[in-house]
Amino acid sequence: MMKLTVLGSTGSIGTQTLEVVQEQGNITIEALGAGRNIKLLEEQIRKFSPRYACVADSEAAKELQIAVADTETKVISGADGMEELAADPASDTVVGAIVGIAGLRSSLAAVKAGKRLALANKETLVTAGDLIRRARKESGAELIPVDSEHSAVFQCLEAISSERRKAELKRVILTASGGPFVGKKADELRDVTPEKALKHPNWEMGAKITIDSATLMNKGLEVLEAAQLFDVTVDQVDVLVHRQSIVHSMIETIDGAVLAQMGVPDMKLPIQYALTYPDRRPMQNNTLNLAEITALTFEKPDLETFRPLALAYDAGRMGHTMPCVINGANEAAVALFLQKKIGFLDIFEMLAKTMQAHEVIKNPTLTDIIEADRWAREMVMQNFARK
Amino acid sequence: MMKLTVLGSTGSIGTQTLEVVQEQGNITIEALGAGRNIKLLEEQIRKFSPRYACVADSEAAKELQIAVADTETKVISGADGMEELAADPASDTVVGAIVGIAGLRSSLAAVKAGKRLALANKETLVTAGDLIRRARKESGAELIPVDSEHSAVFQCLEAISSERRKAELKRVILTASGGPFVGKKADELRDVTPEKALKHPNWEMGAKITIDSATLMNKGLEVLEAAQLFDVTVDQVDVLVHRQSIVHSMIETIDGAVLAQMGVPDMKLPIQYALTYPDRRPMQNNTLNLAEITALTFEKPDLETFRPLALAYDAGRMGHTMPCVINGANEAAVALFLQKKIGFLDIFEMLAKTMQAHEVIKNPTLTDIIEADRWAREMVMQNFARK
Repeated sequence: MMKLTVLGSTGSIGTQTLEVVQEQGNITIEALGAGRNIKLLEEQIRKFSPRYACVADSEAAKELQIAVADTETKVISGADGMEELAADPASDTVVGAIVGIAGLRSSLAAVKAGKRLALANKETLVTAGDLIRRARKESGAELIPVDSEHSAVFQCLEAISSERRKAELKRVILTASGGPFVGKKADELRDVTPEKALKHPNWEMGAKITIDSATLMNKGLEVLEAAQLFDVTVDQVDVLVHRQSIVHSMIETIDGAVLAQMGVPDMKLPIQYALTYPDRRPMQNNTLNLAEITALTFEKPDLETFRPLALAYDAGRMGHTMPCVINGANEAAVALFLQKKIGFLDIFEMLAKTMQAHEVIKNPTLTDIIEADRWAREMVMQNFARK
Repeated sequence: MMKLTVLGSTGSIGTQTLEVVQEQGNITIEALGAGRNIKLLEEQIRKFSPRYACVADSEAAKELQIAVADTETKVISGADGMEELAADPASDTVVGAIVGIAGLRSSLAAVKAGKRLALANKETLVTAGDLIRRARKESGAELIPVDSEHSAVFQCLEAISSERRKAELKRVILTASGGPFVGKKADELRDVTPEKALKHPNWEMGAKITIDSATLMNKGLEVLEAAQLFDVTVDQVDVLVHRQSIVHSMIETIDGAVLAQMGVPDMKLPIQYALTYPDRRPMQNNTLNLAEITALTFEKPDLETFRPLALAYDAGRMGHTMPCVINGANEAAVALFLQKKIGFLDIFEMLAKTMQAHEVIKNPTLTDIIEADRWAREMVMQNFARK
């Protein structure tokens, strides 16, 4: 019986994880963690009876405590609470589905505790790839990506035994839906509103990630994450626009073979795979019918228009704190855009300016990373104030 | 240093195998076997200095013996000679690239001798799948497919550990270029000449296989072969027309994940992989550029028009000697077509009639198989004489 902790349980990945848990039937929920949606968290507590629940917001935690006073679930709160649950030896697997850099500390705690971390939080590896790698080496923790792209690469890499991977993997090819504005040029993007940007063609996701998908920053973060996960340089990670989101990603080996993982767009598959790996378990109603789809298309991403992707490559080449800085700047800029305080293209400019102003700190500690993130957000706010 | 015997060395797969051998540099050629092209075989002998060469045709063998009298290579002849070379413990790997059922005996000999058999001869598994399976179990021989489709499936299956394959593999999906007549209906195929049928859109192959590709019988044989190779029923093997021949084939697992192997159409990759497996070695100038290809298309095969594929499924469901019979009938019918003695659609009719007339022999021995093959050919000739 797997003992699972789901951090970020009320978000898109979290709720789908709990659906998988219900379908699987052989998983106990040890703990749930959420930001502030205590209504949904209460429902989840009543359904899955976890030993613990953590709410990031302490006021909301107090409300929840009263609401679930009739249950066995103990309510705790804050980032410390999340970290505690991630490290708690009562669970063997942690789903890290907190959005943003807020997920970093609990991811690191799960890895340090030697657990399987099913990771849906991009920022963990983008901002603290080296720290995670060192912690994994010490604890032997397993890290299984939940992102559909990274899961696809992970699944394809299973075809090469781990000791041969370093020598035989040539390229990782991440596919990108291209977002709602693929094919458009910069002057067509000037007037993009949050409403328009939130209409993603293939996947249902949270607001922040959907905006990132429209700017291609999402793909940029995935490039940075892939380089860390699969131990390659960012220049070994290619991006290919594939509007149908059927080919979830690919690898190329040194002999020119390309292995791809495909499927209907359904996050439940990579979630389940991360939980049951190395086993696969049956899933229903998700048979891919390529004859019905008729064509899979591929095109180069437009790095000139969608500058965040190009900037993410730059950040990856510079390394150290730079990936953390572009990520922090992006979170702050996207928040401003969603509040309609800045325009769509202003996001791009904010990223570039923040990167230019940053002097990298080599081999950053967790404190350096948290500081670099804070600094990057502040830079964006300063730039905004000056506008 | 790998010691390699190439049977069928002057054919399309054989010559490409020798190109791979030259590029690899760490493989010794122990023996070469060819049908009757002694001019090319002599060149190969002078380049690779094998200890033995075998010519199927005994007259041609005598000629070759004189031609290479100044070399160290000993010339032998006939099917017995091929079998001897396949079994000779001096080599550890045998490439079985003889076309047609003529390749069966030497394939079986290599398997019985416990070698790695890099198999390009479809008929081995189509006609004698059970015999090969039993022989492999006894000898521990490795069987690695060289066909681009089966190699693709084999490569994808590496992503599932062997002990989980039986439980986790749901479907094998073989892709088919569709041949030169894809999209045509029966009445448009009536006047097809060998010249028209020999123009294959993507692959350069021998004449027999190219006709099989035009009738989709090639895919039918591949379905039968895949069922044997991957231990599934023919109904677990799907065929998808994919005109670009970029996706070489796919597998579907029980959770709905589809793994595909792609690449530029170049037989040297599966040949090299079969030789170097489980390692991959660099290959040059074969990088797949999906953005240039722009679209991969998929459609259902037209089983009504291309009846040989439907008949092959029937033969697979009936099993025992029936796959051997459809294969023998097809070889005879294609030969008649290439000699312009019968029309394109007559091939289809010959297959159906021969299958109808056959009473399967259960659990056939090698003798039963050779007899069923002979009988099927004779039936085709009788049908032809009656026309």
